[in-house]
Amino acid sequence: MRKIDVEQIDNMAIGAAVLGTGGGGNPYIGRLMAQSAIRTHGPATMIDAAALADDDLIVAVAMMGAPTVMVEKIPAGNEVVVAFQMLEEYVGQKFAAVMCGEVGGLNSVVPFALAATLGIRIVDADGMGRAFPELQMGIPAINGARATPMAIADEKGNGAVLNTISNKWTENLARQLTIEMGCSAMVALYMLTGKQCKEWAILGSLTKVEEIGLAIRAAHAEHRNPVQAVCDITGGSLLWNGKISDIQRRTEAGFARGEAFIDGLGDYAGQQLRIAFQNEFLIAQTDDRVVATTPDLITMLDAETGEPITTEDLRYGFRVAVLGIPCDPRWRSPIGIETVGPRYFGYDIEYVPIEDRLTAAG
Amino acid sequence: MRKIDVEQIDNMAIGAAVLGTGGGGNPYIGRLMAQSAIRTHGPATMIDAAALADDDLIVAVAMMGAPTVMVEKIPAGNEVVVAFQMLEEYVGQKFAAVMCGEVGGLNSVVPFALAATLGIRIVDADGMGRAFPELQMGIPAINGARATPMAIADEKGNGAVLNTISNKWTENLARQLTIEMGCSAMVALYMLTGKQCKEWAILGSLTKVEEIGLAIRAAHAEHRNPVQAVCDITGGSLLWNGKISDIQRRTEAGFARGEAFIDGLGDYAGQQLRIAFQNEFLIAQTDDRVVATTPDLITMLDAETGEPITTEDLRYGFRVAVLGIPCDPRWRSPIGIETVGPRYFGYDIEYVPIEDRLTAAG
Repeated sequence: MRKIDVEQIDNMAIGAAVLGTGGGGNPYIGRLMAQSAIRTHGPATMIDAAALADDDLIVAVAMMGAPTVMVEKIPAGNEVVVAFQMLEEYVGQKFAAVMCGEVGGLNSVVPFALAATLGIRIVDADGMGRAFPELQMGIPAINGARATPMAIADEKGNGAVLNTISNKWTENLARQLTIEMGCSAMVALYMLTGKQCKEWAILGSLTKVEEIGLAIRAAHAEHRNPVQAVCDITGGSLLWNGKISDIQRRTEAGFARGEAFIDGLGDYAGQQLRIAFQNEFLIAQTDDRVVATTPDLITMLDAETGEPITTEDLRYGFRVAVLGIPCDPRWRSPIGIETVGPRYFGYDIEYVPIEDRLTAAG
Repeated sequence: MRKIDVEQIDNMAIGAAVLGTGGGGNPYIGRLMAQSAIRTHGPATMIDAAALADDDLIVAVAMMGAPTVMVEKIPAGNEVVVAFQMLEEYVGQKFAAVMCGEVGGLNSVVPFALAATLGIRIVDADGMGRAFPELQMGIPAINGARATPMAIADEKGNGAVLNTISNKWTENLARQLTIEMGCSAMVALYMLTGKQCKEWAILGSLTKVEEIGLAIRAAHAEHRNPVQAVCDITGGSLLWNGKISDIQRRTEAGFARGEAFIDGLGDYAGQQLRIAFQNEFLIAQTDDRVVATTPDLITMLDAETGEPITTEDLRYGFRVAVLGIPCDPRWRSPIGIETVGPRYFGYDIEYVPIEDRLTAAG
C-alpha cells in the first residue's frame, strides 16, 4: 500500500503516455484532474492486486472518445465519479477498489482522481499494458470478462447504464452515446472479482509507468539521452529518428484517426516512415517494409526531451524518435491477435513480433 | 375494467393507425405481437385512469425508430418486456400499470402484448392523442414530465438505462442507440404517478381507437362510405382525394423521412398535394396553399376501404383520401406549438388550426 500524491502523478502521467502509444488521452489534462482531486481530498491509496480478497468486486474507469476532442472539451471533473456511482447503484454493491482500463496519459491518472475523491483504493494494475481504442480490447476481455454492466457519463450530467450481449456490442453502443455526448465521456466498466484481477490484469503497471516517468526526468537532470533511458526501462528499441513532415487527422466515428509522416534524419535520411493511428499508433511502415504493428507498442518521443507525443499533440516540424516496445505476451495469442492485430483494424498485414521484425531488418 | 381479447386488438390496430397519422409503427406487426401474447397468456385487462391510485407508478412503452425498418427487422417479441423489467429493476419498484406513449398502429397495441404477458393492467390513455416522431413530444412532457429514467432494448438482447438532463437529450441519446441497434428498438419511459396520468394523459384514447376501427368495419359491412365514417367519428374533414404519383423516402437519422405526392382526382383534379413526413405526416400543401400542418392530424386512408395507410406502406398508384383531424387542444398552447409545430421540424410555416384553414379555404 502506498500513498500517491501530486509528485507521483507527474511521473505517472508522463510514463503512462509512453505506454499509451499515442492514445489514452492527454496526459496534461489527466494530470490536472488527478492533482486537483488530490489537493482537495488528499493522496490516493494504491494497493497491489495481491491485497484484494478473491471475492472483492472492483471496476475500471476510463475516458472514452477522441483524445483530440478532450483537449478542447475539457471534462467537468466529476463525470468519472458519476459513472462509477451510477454503476455501484445499478449493481447494488460497493466496489472494493478501482483500476485502470488501460495505461495511457489520461487514463492512467484519472482513476487516481476518482480514488482520491471517494477515498477508495486503486489497484496497481491495468487491463492492457498499453492503450487501445475500443472497449472489447483488454486482457480480461479476451479471457472472458464482460464489459457490462457499464456506466457512461458526460460533463453535462447525462448518463446511461448498458447491458449487452457482447463486448463488441458494448463498444458499438457506448461509442454512439459517446459521439452524441460530444465525442468524449467517462465510463466505468469491466467489473472483476479480486481473483479475476489477479489472474487477468497487467499487474504492477502503474508502478511501471511511474518508473518510466522518473527515468525520463532523471535522464534530464543527469544530462543523459532520455530516449535511450526510455528504451532501457521499457525494453524498447529505436525504430526511427526524424521530423514530422505531414499529419492527416480526422475525428471520425468517435475516434481520432489519421496518419503521421516522418521524414528520416541521420541513419534514416532519405526515407519516410508513415504511422497510421486510431487514437493509438497502430502501424509503422516505410515504402518498402513494415517496421512495427499493433499489438506491439509504437511510441513517439520528442527527440530532445524524451517526452511522449500523443495523437492530439502531433505537429508539423516536431523532431521525434519512434520506439517499438514488445507488448504483453498474452496479446500474442491467437485471440489476442484476432482482437487487436493489424487485420482487425483493416490492414492486410501479418502480425510479426517486433523483436523478429528487428532481427529481420538487421 | 375490461378484458381486451384478439378481436378488440383487430379494431384497435386499425383505428390507432388512423390517429397515428402515418407513424406509430406498422399496425399489422403490432397486431400480430399483441394477439400472439394474448393467445398465449390470455386477454389483457384495460382500466380507466380513474382506477389508478394517485401514488401508483406507471410507465409507457413504445417502439422507437424508423417504421420502415421494423417491417423488415421484425421484433423478437420479448424486447418490450425486457425494457419494462429493466426499468422496474433500475427503479427498484413494480409498476402498477402500463400505458401507451402514443396512439399509432403498432404503438397502441404493443403495450397490450406487455400487459397480457406480464398480467399487468393497461390504462385506457396515451401521451399524445396521435403519434409523433421524437421522445420529448408528449402532453406529459410539455407539462414537465421526465422521460428518464428510461430503458431501451433490442431484439438481440442488448439494453440500456438512460438518465439525462432533459427530454431532448433523452431523444438524442436514445436515437443513437436505436440507430446502432438496427434502427428499431423498444423503450419504457415517462414514469408517471397515477395523479399525473389523470391530469396529463389523453384519457380514453384506446377506447376511441377501438371505436374508429369498429366504425370502419361497420361501414364495410353496411356498404357505407368508410372514409365518411372515419370523418364522422374523429371529427375530421376530407382534405384531398387522389392517386399517389410519387414517393421520396429515406431512412435518415433513425427516422423514415420523405415526401408523398398525390395527384388530385374529382374535385381536386389538376392539382397536386405534397405531404412531408418524418415517421408521421407533418405538412400537407399544394403549390399555392398550406392545407394542414402538425400538430393537427394528417391521415391518409385507402379511398376504397377506408383503412389507414402508414408511412412504410405508401406505394405508387394507391387511391387515397387525406383527412385533417383537429389535435388535442393542449397541443395548441405556445409550448405545444414550440415542441411539435411546423417550425420545430424546419418548415417556415405558421401553425393555423385546421378548422381555420378549412374555413379560409371555403
